[in-house]
Amino acid sequence: MRVLGIDPGIAIMGFGFIDKIGHKLVPVQYGCIETEAGTLPEVRLKQIYEASCSLLDKYKPDTVAVEKLFFNRNVTTAFSVGQARGVLLLAAAQRGLPIGEYTPMQVKQAVVGYGAAEKKQVQEMVKMFLKLSVVPKPDDVADALAVAVCHAHSYSLNDKLNGAKRR
Amino acid sequence: MRVLGIDPGIAIMGFGFIDKIGHKLVPVQYGCIETEAGTLPEVRLKQIYEASCSLLDKYKPDTVAVEKLFFNRNVTTAFSVGQARGVLLLAAAQRGLPIGEYTPMQVKQAVVGYGAAEKKQVQEMVKMFLKLSVVPKPDDVADALAVAVCHAHSYSLNDKLNGAKRR
Repeated sequence: MRVLGIDPGIAIMGFGFIDKIGHKLVPVQYGCIETEAGTLPEVRLKQIYEASCSLLDKYKPDTVAVEKLFFNRNVTTAFSVGQARGVLLLAAAQRGLPIGEYTPMQVKQAVVGYGAAEKKQVQEMVKMFLKLSVVPKPDDVADALAVAVCHAHSYSLNDKLNGAKRR
Repeated sequence: MRVLGIDPGIAIMGFGFIDKIGHKLVPVQYGCIETEAGTLPEVRLKQIYEASCSLLDKYKPDTVAVEKLFFNRNVTTAFSVGQARGVLLLAAAQRGLPIGEYTPMQVKQAVVGYGAAEKKQVQEMVKMFLKLSVVPKPDDVADALAVAVCHAHSYSLNDKLNGAKRR
C-alpha cells in the first residue's frame, strides 16, 4: 500500500510518499511544493494544485493523509492554509483517493506513542521508521512523512475494523 | 463588463453575476451552490469546484470578486470556508480571471456608503441597484451580489488608476 502524507501550506506544502510492505515502511519520494511570496494567492493555489496533480499521477498513492490543523493562533493563517488544503483535497477527490485526517496529537501518538511528544522526537522516530540517514528538511517534509507513517499504522488497523480512517 | 461575486462557504456558496453597462448594473444570474452535510469534505469540495467551473464557463465573467473573511469566532469555520474558497479561486485562476477581494467593511462602504452598515441596509441597496423586486434569499446570495456590486464600483475606479483591485 502506498501512502501520501501531506503537511499543507501556501508557501511550503510538504509531501511524503511511503510504501507499506508487510510491516515495513519504505520511503518512495518526499519533498515540498513551494510557491513564492508576493505571487497572487490564486496563482499560488493553481501552482499547488498542478504540482499535486503531477505528484499524484506520477507516484499513484492508494490513500492520502493530511494533517488536520487546529490553530489557536492566527485565523488568517488558518484561512490561507485552508485554501491550500482545499486544492490538495480536490486533486485527491478527483482521483477517487480515500483521505485520512489526523490531528498533530494523533500523529504524535501514532509515531512516538505519546500525544504530547516534542517535534524533535517525532522527527527522530520518522527517521528511524523510514531508515533515513538524516531528518528531512524543511520541517514540513518531516511533518508530511510523519502523517504518512501515522496513516500507514492507523489505516491497516481501521481497515480491518471498518474501512479507511475518515473524519 | 461582467462581474461574478462570491460569498464562499462549504455548505452554501452564494454567487451572483452582474453586468455593468455604462453606469447601470444588471443582474444576469444568481443563486447558490449547495452541498450536503454528512458528505465527505473532499467530495463537497469537488462538487463546489465542478459547479464553479460550470458557472464560469456558462456565464463567462470578466472578473471575480470574493468576500475576504475575518473570523474572530470559529477557526474551524475559517479553515472550512478557506478550503471552499481555495477551489473557487483555483477555478478562476485556471481561466486567467482577475480576482478582487473585499472585506465586509469594504463591501458595506461601497454599497451603502458606510462601513458599519447593517446587513439589512446592504441587502436593500443591492435590491435597489439591481432593480430586484425582492431581496434574494438565502443571505449568501444577497451577500454574493453585494460583493459583485462593490467590485463593479471599485473595479472601474481602480482600473482607471492602476488596474484591477488586488490584495
